[in-house]
Amino acid sequence: MEQITVIKIGGNVIDNPTALAAFVRNLVSLEGPKILIHGGGKLATRLAERMEIPVQMVEGRRITDKATLDIVTMVYAGLINKQIVAALQAAGCNALGLSGADGNIGRAHRRKPTPIDYGFVGDIDAVDSNLLKTLLEAGITPVFSAIMHDGKGNLLNCNADSVATAVALGAAAIAPTDLIFCFEKRGVLRDAEDDASVISRITAANYAALKAEGAVKGGMIPKIENALKAVEQGVRSVRIKHADDLLHEAGTTIEKE
Amino acid sequence: MEQITVIKIGGNVIDNPTALAAFVRNLVSLEGPKILIHGGGKLATRLAERMEIPVQMVEGRRITDKATLDIVTMVYAGLINKQIVAALQAAGCNALGLSGADGNIGRAHRRKPTPIDYGFVGDIDAVDSNLLKTLLEAGITPVFSAIMHDGKGNLLNCNADSVATAVALGAAAIAPTDLIFCFEKRGVLRDAEDDASVISRITAANYAALKAEGAVKGGMIPKIENALKAVEQGVRSVRIKHADDLLHEAGTTIEKE
Repeated sequence: MEQITVIKIGGNVIDNPTALAAFVRNLVSLEGPKILIHGGGKLATRLAERMEIPVQMVEGRRITDKATLDIVTMVYAGLINKQIVAALQAAGCNALGLSGADGNIGRAHRRKPTPIDYGFVGDIDAVDSNLLKTLLEAGITPVFSAIMHDGKGNLLNCNADSVATAVALGAAAIAPTDLIFCFEKRGVLRDAEDDASVISRITAANYAALKAEGAVKGGMIPKIENALKAVEQGVRSVRIKHADDLLHEAGTTIEKE
Repeated sequence: MEQITVIKIGGNVIDNPTALAAFVRNLVSLEGPKILIHGGGKLATRLAERMEIPVQMVEGRRITDKATLDIVTMVYAGLINKQIVAALQAAGCNALGLSGADGNIGRAHRRKPTPIDYGFVGDIDAVDSNLLKTLLEAGITPVFSAIMHDGKGNLLNCNADSVATAVALGAAAIAPTDLIFCFEKRGVLRDAEDDASVISRITAANYAALKAEGAVKGGMIPKIENALKAVEQGVRSVRIKHADDLLHEAGTTIEKE
């Protein structure tokens, strides 16, 4: 394989049927072996509300108790995953949906219960390159939800960005791998109000300066630092761009050097 | 591959955690390449009730409208499928869950809307032997829910017994295949009240007589006729037995001759 593209989409694409349909069309046009990771969207929250399962938040993060784990497993690994796979199939892309438990492809461990017990929330350990390779060589596009497992019978709700990074690291063991985070903005913006202020390139060499001058701030800091770690560990590039720009040279590229 | 075993479990196993745990242990002990198909159980009905989605029945059969399709996709292809896969993984069996859309492995067509429009209910056309072979050769145990797709972006709720038969026919193109329907009784009973009255063997040659004398009746008639069709079309044997007897010579065997 010459190269692999790993693409992550979030709730902003999943919750919008028009955006999702456009994304599916673009993904089918993207050449070469590819892997999709999808986040959750608002459906799980709506379903929990409708079932009167209380949402427990601690420091802005949702606690995944057993009832909530069942909901996210149903919605993410079930409904959303299968709807995306069926839509990709209809568009001519041979997609196959996966949770981490499927083929033991994604192992995670439950997050330590101290200081905050997040419940059935996991941090991903690794993605199995062998099964990824078997699937890609069969012409299949793996489609991951962020539900992983611990190998002891427990499903775990993981962060989809972290799953995407682990998938890209697994893919990088097979072929040069580019990871694309589809984002609600056009890339990392120097000025949040100005779509033309995209920072085109971030490396370990210029990151400290960009952070110091406030061009990278807030929620972008962990995103960029994780991307820098991923390229350090073997992913060829990480791009942060708008889903609409999937097929274009656009957005912010994070590279090793 | 020397032979393949295809096993179907229904709601009576899925709804009972003790029975399901025992089944998982037995399945792991069953030697050779194997494939599991699971039905639904009562959870989808309970979830629909809780979400106040009206259950529409016509002539004893449930109508699958869009809201109901979403529920069964969540519960069957999501929660139940992933829970079974995670439990099998924990027991040392490399399971991988599939809906028909995944890898385009199971195509179905929507049932004709006349005389009764069942909604998003499908009849399965075929299961892809190539992908089955790839997975089995990789040491994987495919685990199917009965949610198939039509290749046009629609998921379809199918009958799990029919899916199991289609999977067995797909497997039979790879290696001699035995299909086991796990059942709530010990097999086909001459006397429904007497577990010792199992008919051990049914073939095209003795079926007419068994039916005429009333030994095969009611809901067993279509089951046996479908099994006879499956062995006629290339499945080596079909067994109807209790889930507890999975590892034993027991139950009713339907063979070609």
